Amino acid sequence: MSFGARLDEAVRRARTPLCVGLDPRWESLPLALRLAHGDGNRPHDMANAAAAYESFCLSVLELVAPFTAIVKPQMAFFEGCGPKGLKAMRRIIARARDMGLLVILDAKRGDIASTATAYAEAAFGGTAFGNATLSVWQADALTVNPYLGEDAVAPFIAEARKSGAGLFVLVRTSNPGAGLFQDLVCDEEPLWKHVAHRVAEWNQPGVDASGWGDVGAVVGATYPEELAWTRQACPRVPLLVPGYGAQGASLESLKAAFRADGTGAVINSSRAILFPGPSNAPDWKDRIAEAASDTSAALAAIAGLS
Amino acid sequence: MSFGARLDEAVRRARTPLCVGLDPRWESLPLALRLAHGDGNRPHDMANAAAAYESFCLSVLELVAPFTAIVKPQMAFFEGCGPKGLKAMRRIIARARDMGLLVILDAKRGDIASTATAYAEAAFGGTAFGNATLSVWQADALTVNPYLGEDAVAPFIAEARKSGAGLFVLVRTSNPGAGLFQDLVCDEEPLWKHVAHRVAEWNQPGVDASGWGDVGAVVGATYPEELAWTRQACPRVPLLVPGYGAQGASLESLKAAFRADGTGAVINSSRAILFPGPSNAPDWKDRIAEAASDTSAALAAIAGLS
Repeated sequence: MSFGARLDEAVRRARTPLCVGLDPRWESLPLALRLAHGDGNRPHDMANAAAAYESFCLSVLELVAPFTAIVKPQMAFFEGCGPKGLKAMRRIIARARDMGLLVILDAKRGDIASTATAYAEAAFGGTAFGNATLSVWQADALTVNPYLGEDAVAPFIAEARKSGAGLFVLVRTSNPGAGLFQDLVCDEEPLWKHVAHRVAEWNQPGVDASGWGDVGAVVGATYPEELAWTRQACPRVPLLVPGYGAQGASLESLKAAFRADGTGAVINSSRAILFPGPSNAPDWKDRIAEAASDTSAALAAIAGLS
Repeated sequence: MSFGARLDEAVRRARTPLCVGLDPRWESLPLALRLAHGDGNRPHDMANAAAAYESFCLSVLELVAPFTAIVKPQMAFFEGCGPKGLKAMRRIIARARDMGLLVILDAKRGDIASTATAYAEAAFGGTAFGNATLSVWQADALTVNPYLGEDAVAPFIAEARKSGAGLFVLVRTSNPGAGLFQDLVCDEEPLWKHVAHRVAEWNQPGVDASGWGDVGAVVGATYPEELAWTRQACPRVPLLVPGYGAQGASLESLKAAFRADGTGAVINSSRAILFPGPSNAPDWKDRIAEAASDTSAALAAIAGLS
């Protein structure tokens, strides 16, 4: 089954476009966890930070699974506590997949030739070890940066297609200063539209009976016009939409991300779900479940999926 | 001491602009190592692949140290054998620093806000663990992708300045298809020149008595005109130049990368030094030392440093 079809199926099954971002940040973790692995302020060491992240994310998976079909681990935070943090991320991804969740690894990779292949093999392809071909992270999709051009994205696409995985290429990022280069106008179109056209082209060979392909686009919810344009101009490209919630985009602004039937975009929410209350709230698990449930329902309604 | 000054001092001390890229690729490793950790074809498992990479790179450090002051581990290959591979990379970097080598971590990172900070803290800044502030990888510099804009690069710069580290921002990459987006012309200048101007601007506050700043530019040796333009237009920006050797750029094409006194650019060579002969050559150590010595001298001569 192609990635586009799997993504579409996941959204329809969960009846929500919600994707829960797994961004563990030490300073925001529930106090109980910070006390179990540190002095409440700092973790004792990298191993304790990694253990706290793992414990927190495994709890989050259980709490959000009734309300979403997709999770997005942010690799930077796991890298931040070293090899043990990345080992924790690997176990979190394995658990998510066992639970039937689709995993988008947010690592924004971009490199050339065999180096790009190495990243893609680690993310979702596979390398031959002994008698087995293993992917290090075993994600279902990876975020990718387009600056290096088509021959740099091609190895990621080739590996993705081999293993039924997908990509999300950065088109319009959600940060306030995204436009510095992305808005430069060349031949009457801004750079980000040039990238969007290429993404549509790269996606085309992967489009299957589901109507969706396997090379998606990242477009920030903080740029509603750009989101609407991309949905219209790239009708078979799945969208990954960050920026809703803590980054300030409104629910209304998301409407344009979906096709008429409510599919075609997954909306990421991280902090608003992971850290909905004060970090010393003893009922943090209930709060996470409630935030996930509310966000899931609100997104389903705006997409017209509920 | 600022990164620009440290880089300048390293090149002057070694009397060569050579930077040795640490790109361990299983299939190219000396046969003896592949037999010690696998069946000669595949590694037994990820742990053995990581052990082979570590053993190889530690040997390479000893062999090339007389001929260079700078090494550049390519993170993708270490990530390719999982957390154990990254643990190996961490030890390799620590050894390199103990030997007095400057370490440029080639990971081409790019993300926003606190996520960018997390990558930068891991690379060269530091996170508070217990009573210590530790950087996971302890590199001296990191390669960074500019597509997300200034507010995404700023957290990397801030962390770098805190710890005397540096950045190399991708301006013109060495791959054949680099121009797809980088050559798009906006306001009469291609995108890559827009990026170069910004890099010069970001670099300016870090310029010290050495004459160099701490925000460098990556410009491929495979594009000699772009290299010459950048050296002229950005006189205080250190350049990291990939593409020489296996990627096909000539020695002559490198001339334009240097300032009149031979400084200002470090030239990376990976495969031509790591894998100079057939992988079953029993004298692989001699061959690596010879390749490093020859390349070091050739680059010193072209720079005018010898």
